[in-house]
Amino acid sequence: MKLGILGAGGIASTMAKTVAEMKGVEVYAVAARDLERARVFAQKYEVKKAYGSYEEMLADDEVELVYIATPHSHHYLHAKMCLEAGKHVLCEKAFTVNAEQAQKLFDLAKEKKLLITEAIWTRYMPSRKMINDIIESGVIGEVTAVTANLSYTVSHVERIRKPELAGGALLDVGVYPINFASMVLGDKVKDVKATAIFQNGVDILDSIAMVFEGDCMATLQCGAREISDRMGSIFGTRGYMQVQNINNPEKITVFDTEHKEVASYVVPEQISGYEYEVESCMKAIQEGKLECPEMPHAETIRIMKIMDDIRKSWNYEIPCIE
Amino acid sequence: MKLGILGAGGIASTMAKTVAEMKGVEVYAVAARDLERARVFAQKYEVKKAYGSYEEMLADDEVELVYIATPHSHHYLHAKMCLEAGKHVLCEKAFTVNAEQAQKLFDLAKEKKLLITEAIWTRYMPSRKMINDIIESGVIGEVTAVTANLSYTVSHVERIRKPELAGGALLDVGVYPINFASMVLGDKVKDVKATAIFQNGVDILDSIAMVFEGDCMATLQCGAREISDRMGSIFGTRGYMQVQNINNPEKITVFDTEHKEVASYVVPEQISGYEYEVESCMKAIQEGKLECPEMPHAETIRIMKIMDDIRKSWNYEIPCIE
Repeated sequence: MKLGILGAGGIASTMAKTVAEMKGVEVYAVAARDLERARVFAQKYEVKKAYGSYEEMLADDEVELVYIATPHSHHYLHAKMCLEAGKHVLCEKAFTVNAEQAQKLFDLAKEKKLLITEAIWTRYMPSRKMINDIIESGVIGEVTAVTANLSYTVSHVERIRKPELAGGALLDVGVYPINFASMVLGDKVKDVKATAIFQNGVDILDSIAMVFEGDCMATLQCGAREISDRMGSIFGTRGYMQVQNINNPEKITVFDTEHKEVASYVVPEQISGYEYEVESCMKAIQEGKLECPEMPHAETIRIMKIMDDIRKSWNYEIPCIE
Repeated sequence: MKLGILGAGGIASTMAKTVAEMKGVEVYAVAARDLERARVFAQKYEVKKAYGSYEEMLADDEVELVYIATPHSHHYLHAKMCLEAGKHVLCEKAFTVNAEQAQKLFDLAKEKKLLITEAIWTRYMPSRKMINDIIESGVIGEVTAVTANLSYTVSHVERIRKPELAGGALLDVGVYPINFASMVLGDKVKDVKATAIFQNGVDILDSIAMVFEGDCMATLQCGAREISDRMGSIFGTRGYMQVQNINNPEKITVFDTEHKEVASYVVPEQISGYEYEVESCMKAIQEGKLECPEMPHAETIRIMKIMDDIRKSWNYEIPCIE
């Protein structure tokens, strides 16, 4: 499969390095708004084609799947361009700025019979199945509560600090704890309450309480100013588990009700972790599917709506690029 | 110093065993509503006097300090009885059912020139100074965020499940994470938002977001239905620390911004941990003080008010015993 990368930033580099070590897929093209930047990238990662505009790359018939690695403010615009050019799409998280944009993309992809999926990598990783399997084994009993936090020192970064780039902690960082809670407690969310600290027009530290049907609850914190321990904890009636680094799970430890460690798991060695979402896309495309089972369209929409509602409760409206 | 224990339950036993190993203080008397129960307790822990009513013990001139070990629904009533009988008081947490009751006790104690303090043990423990010292050393930079959780499988216990005993997770369990956050982030609370799951008339799982002046935030979860990992995490601009078991800190681990462990501390060996609050009372009484510096009256009132406001936001009114 021939992959085109739209954008030439840090995350694009990681994808290029990852695909270089994968079988059955190659980074065939890269596009940046600046040709020189694309050329440097292409040379560095041995990419055949370098384009100085996204349109040019999308006009290349060889490109089958496009990985969108631009800021989330521009995902809708760029994914739409890809679909209109007849390309399958793997689009970075947060998928779009809001649920409406996401729905429009899914509708267009359906019309064009193209695959499109959100690159929320934790959904595709083996750790997801490991966590599910541990829960299903019943070792921690019935799961009723989750806590998770994720924060990075990124408030100085352009995509975080500018409202017009859909800045703030929620869309960029919060999407992980919300997905973590959703993967464990499901999609029957009854109520979401969120409190935020704003600095210079964007949320930099958020507390989120999610109440699920069946009297379950998740308590989440996400931030863009300080570092956090990235811990995800899953509490059940017979014990609990800790997931180290919810953004890229490294270790899962299970404890009993006496706080004794009863089991510990490490995830399989990985290239970067990006390989799983690419593999899922390849499989789905081969099978003629329009969505990846790891992250169904309905789930992307549902999570985007939660984030829409949270921002609405804060009166934080992100200017949309159409 | 001669201590009287009011109540003969599990926490009273721990106190008796603790004081037995301390110097300069003895459990001189115990009182229960049932004389036989008091006698069994007294025999088991080698306590000189056993009383079948609280009034009788309080009429004993030898008793100097009373440890109140009854459910928090009855703290106000019992502390008032103690003060009126001229006894100093160490009263278990949560101190009273609401701030109004707490204020009345402090006013009465002041009038009677007696010491009264809340037995929120984490405030008196060496771990508190250790955590403060680590923060003051600057190793994790400026502290701006806290997460903490505490849950126990206690929803079947009478004091938790009965609203008339001031039941629910908040007063019994939530008082710890709220105190943890307050010890770290201070007393300048700007906003508190809390979400709860209620079962049979009491809150059994709560999410609490506390916003502090200086753009700091604490995200807390407390529960009475499932077990939790009891983790308290303190995030700063240059790193973070994890406190294992916020209800009785065992280990404090410091990490840098690369998530590398840079230091680890264990707390000094302790009898049960109750000795520190008793020692503080003894010292304060000897010095003629009416409050303990580790938990000033103003701080008890402030925390009670936070919990009052939270319950008010839930429309959960606890029937008060006067």
